[in-house]
Amino acid sequence: MYEGAVQDLIDELGRLPGIGPKSAQRIAFHILEADETDMRSLAQAIITVKEKVKFCQICFNVSEEDTCHICRDRKRDESLICVVEESKDVLAIERTRSYRGRYHVLGGSINPIAGIGPDELHIRELLTRLSDEKIEEVILATDPNLEGEATATYLARILQAVGVKITRLASGLPVGGDLEYADEVTLGRAFEGRRSV
Amino acid sequence: MYEGAVQDLIDELGRLPGIGPKSAQRIAFHILEADETDMRSLAQAIITVKEKVKFCQICFNVSEEDTCHICRDRKRDESLICVVEESKDVLAIERTRSYRGRYHVLGGSINPIAGIGPDELHIRELLTRLSDEKIEEVILATDPNLEGEATATYLARILQAVGVKITRLASGLPVGGDLEYADEVTLGRAFEGRRSV
Repeated sequence: MYEGAVQDLIDELGRLPGIGPKSAQRIAFHILEADETDMRSLAQAIITVKEKVKFCQICFNVSEEDTCHICRDRKRDESLICVVEESKDVLAIERTRSYRGRYHVLGGSINPIAGIGPDELHIRELLTRLSDEKIEEVILATDPNLEGEATATYLARILQAVGVKITRLASGLPVGGDLEYADEVTLGRAFEGRRSV
Repeated sequence: MYEGAVQDLIDELGRLPGIGPKSAQRIAFHILEADETDMRSLAQAIITVKEKVKFCQICFNVSEEDTCHICRDRKRDESLICVVEESKDVLAIERTRSYRGRYHVLGGSINPIAGIGPDELHIRELLTRLSDEKIEEVILATDPNLEGEATATYLARILQAVGVKITRLASGLPVGGDLEYADEVTLGRAFEGRRSV
């Protein structure tokens, strides 16, 4: 459609997640008109990430070293593993400052429609950690949606055999939310999980 | 938030148009997990565009040469100039195969809120072309929205002094559309511009 280089860029951008043909075109024209130094540093950032960033050999969190800063941190409680779907979930939990254990990043959730079964996730490596390390509790912190719940249920079932304490993050009303706008499932969970005050 | 390189990439991506912090994060993680060769070719496509693509010295369309393939084409009707906002509009008009003249890309539209006045657009260069080239008709093909209409009105006013024929693309019902869903302004324009059959 366009002359060579512009169309190549539109095609490349269009392969990124969440970028349709129209956005790809808009971004390509932005790049075309933007400052050359800025665009070179965007290109360099892509290359640097591919060259420097890998996944932690222990927990599969993103890391610029062989093991991530959390796994390297000796002050972390090594008896706790919090299982999450993605590295971004690690960040979300770290922001709460309410967890001092370590993590295990699955790399996704069980999703038969997308062809992701247990073998595509880092579940085997989690079992190895459970047999090698002194783990007392595994906290299942997958997303509270269909795929995340299925993954948690699957993990709970296979971890039962290991004989470790298994917990799941509480479901309930989000803080700052409005009771009348809560969906029935969430409100139902909030009732089930009610605590005495 | 993340370790160095990942956060740098998220920051760079977040500066692109239409990419918020969440999309930037999702794209960065996609890049992290994607094939290295593919990501190097994305980075290279950005650099190639900055190195090879420039704007046509005559009409400001994107081009890998000093002048674009349309301005170089001797078979084009040199007495017609179609004024558009962006290079992508040139492409849209070319796809219709119903125009054989040349173009002039303004580089945007008059938008006081965004700080874009006539001086930020290639209007002076259009006036130079009108005095240097043998132009018989200028077709104003800016977008049929507020900014595009304002730009067309502005151009029509200053071009009147030049003594050239000035036309504007027809407004009316889109082909394949449904009369009952047309907005009042469009339907009103369709009545104004009705033709005998």
